Amino acid sequence: MNKTTLDAANGLYPSLTTIVGAMVEGKANFLTIAHVGIMNHGAPQYLSIGLGRSHYTNIGIHESGVFSINVPSRELVVKTDYVGLVSGKNTDKSDVFELFQGKTGAPLIAECPVVMECRVERVVEFSTHEVFVGEIVETYADETVLSGGKIDVAKLDPLLFDMSSVKYWSLGQEVAPCWRIGKEMKRAVRGE
Amino acid sequence: MNKTTLDAANGLYPSLTTIVGAMVEGKANFLTIAHVGIMNHGAPQYLSIGLGRSHYTNIGIHESGVFSINVPSRELVVKTDYVGLVSGKNTDKSDVFELFQGKTGAPLIAECPVVMECRVERVVEFSTHEVFVGEIVETYADETVLSGGKIDVAKLDPLLFDMSSVKYWSLGQEVAPCWRIGKEMKRAVRGE
Repeated sequence: MNKTTLDAANGLYPSLTTIVGAMVEGKANFLTIAHVGIMNHGAPQYLSIGLGRSHYTNIGIHESGVFSINVPSRELVVKTDYVGLVSGKNTDKSDVFELFQGKTGAPLIAECPVVMECRVERVVEFSTHEVFVGEIVETYADETVLSGGKIDVAKLDPLLFDMSSVKYWSLGQEVAPCWRIGKEMKRAVRGE
Repeated sequence: MNKTTLDAANGLYPSLTTIVGAMVEGKANFLTIAHVGIMNHGAPQYLSIGLGRSHYTNIGIHESGVFSINVPSRELVVKTDYVGLVSGKNTDKSDVFELFQGKTGAPLIAECPVVMECRVERVVEFSTHEVFVGEIVETYADETVLSGGKIDVAKLDPLLFDMSSVKYWSLGQEVAPCWRIGKEMKRAVRGE
């Protein structure tokens, strides 16, 4: 076994870069979060965002019970990084983006091609972090990132985050179809 | 607002493709899972995997309290897809990969350049899914995917999963440094 041990390093990268939005003390606030999760597949659909307890945004999510997960394209990288650099505690971020209204009152970012508004379903508590599990209430997408009525990740051109390089990365090319590229092996294993 | 509504479509893609391993009824079993999550940043480090309740693997994770998260490279796409196509209920997947031993007894995949062995910290229950939150016990990586002692995602060449296209995708190029590309905007906003 030629492997090196890296203690308990988190090797679950890249992850998707999102901008989480919430109303905090009457103002729209935004925070860049790539420590996200998909809880299930189905309806209702549940997603998670892991936020350090010290973040200003947490206050607003607790107050309102709603938040948005906005998915920026590569071209939005500067604003995306900016809202991850400064805290709502001392900087008003309510005018960084053009906003639109949804069903829940959570602030939604017009410049993001994919936007999900979520209602808090539960909070999973860790010593330093709060993981907010949200049920998606409604998803909005720009026509320009759709193909056949579905989100087209190539058109979306999302920002992927990696903690080792401390960089944003782009999406590459299609590799293979899921639940198909392994079918030949399945037939071979079964002697078909 | 030119956005189309997509009901509660999950727009949190692409996500990282992993192969989850567990001992089930005395045999190593593996399952492809891209519905993963990062709960926090720090030590202990907690990750989540969302598994439908009907999966065979769940039995083994409950029995043993441990599992592995193995991150395949693009070149492992056929085997990765295969273990997501067939169930351990009727197919022995214990000899699909070369395995190695870690600290917990969870089966670890030698062909995967990054492997994390995890101990179940809690189970977050949903109606159709169980989300296993694991604390990383130890992370293993091939020297070939390291740069400066850290995992290099470009060398890793992971498989990203997207549910809309039902395809695996590759990682693209570096876009920009995190917590730096937005600094000019920060200075401008502050009038510095």
